Amino acid sequence: MAQKLEGILTGIFITSRQDSFVTTRKVNIRVVSNGLNGDKHASWYRGADARAKHYKKGTKIWNNRQISIVSEEELKEIAAAMSTPEIKPEWLGANFCLKGIPALTFLPAGTKIYIPDFYGGQDIGLYVTALNEPCTDPGKIIQANFPDVANLAINFPKAAYNKRGVVAVVEHPGCIQEGSKVTVVVPDQYLY
Amino acid sequence: MAQKLEGILTGIFITSRQDSFVTTRKVNIRVVSNGLNGDKHASWYRGADARAKHYKKGTKIWNNRQISIVSEEELKEIAAAMSTPEIKPEWLGANFCLKGIPALTFLPAGTKIYIPDFYGGQDIGLYVTALNEPCTDPGKIIQANFPDVANLAINFPKAAYNKRGVVAVVEHPGCIQEGSKVTVVVPDQYLY
Repeated sequence: MAQKLEGILTGIFITSRQDSFVTTRKVNIRVVSNGLNGDKHASWYRGADARAKHYKKGTKIWNNRQISIVSEEELKEIAAAMSTPEIKPEWLGANFCLKGIPALTFLPAGTKIYIPDFYGGQDIGLYVTALNEPCTDPGKIIQANFPDVANLAINFPKAAYNKRGVVAVVEHPGCIQEGSKVTVVVPDQYLY
Repeated sequence: MAQKLEGILTGIFITSRQDSFVTTRKVNIRVVSNGLNGDKHASWYRGADARAKHYKKGTKIWNNRQISIVSEEELKEIAAAMSTPEIKPEWLGANFCLKGIPALTFLPAGTKIYIPDFYGGQDIGLYVTALNEPCTDPGKIIQANFPDVANLAINFPKAAYNKRGVVAVVEHPGCIQEGSKVTVVVPDQYLY
């Protein structure tokens, strides 16, 4: 029997800017077939980067990173490790922030995330494809927000290791709202 | 360090028929962005079925089953369990048959499968999304091929449990050939 967890969608964030990964909060959003409406990560394809080293840089590959998801609890752990008052989801370029899902980053690929449709349609469904590896860019944003704390940019990747959340693709689209209940279903094959 | 396994692509199979799932062998095939050229499973979407029970039957959802993959070794184990001389990949509606990858069905979601491009381009890449749960239909085909062996249709799901291979989506397209080397890369996060 698949394991079910329940949490809350505490924040929705997108960006359409190509020159920055920092996201901006939205109260609600339309989830389309390949990402979030208006978000720059919404696409069937992406260019291969350090996360897909098997291909030459820039090779057009399937985009398994349509939506990135972090947890409030893990962001607090990162903040504690870096001695900063907080780490905002926006600074990491996250799209969703969840609360109440323990060790979000350790959810295996294949995990489903369901969010109720704002207009009463069938649930929005996401399929987790990978954990999100920490990169150095958010550290620079965090440093800029706390100029009095030393070495934040350098310390971020280690502080955020295995706390950086997961990435996902859309299984079923729809319209969602901040504050909604979220149901996480871990697939059977990881629950021996 | 991600674990690498090497095997051989011993067979390529497709079907364009809507009235049968049984596939037909091809010496080579073009892997397109969302499946195998000419195969009926090639699509960005599919209708929700018993494998996606969260949705009403037929709901248009993301197709995480573009390509289905079985292993020669597991097919031999199924044949032994059913007391039949053989089980052909075609009878299960498989698209690829691999040899030399132990316990193929247990590869976690997120595993990458790379196959060289026939024309010297970058490798074809597949992303494993799920194990394939046995359904009853192949049992009927197997029974029809061995009419003298009793209860094959009934026995198939149990005999094929955890031996039915995996399903995958295309990460990078290209042209492949039967007999090619196959490289399987299991993601780091499952190798603690």
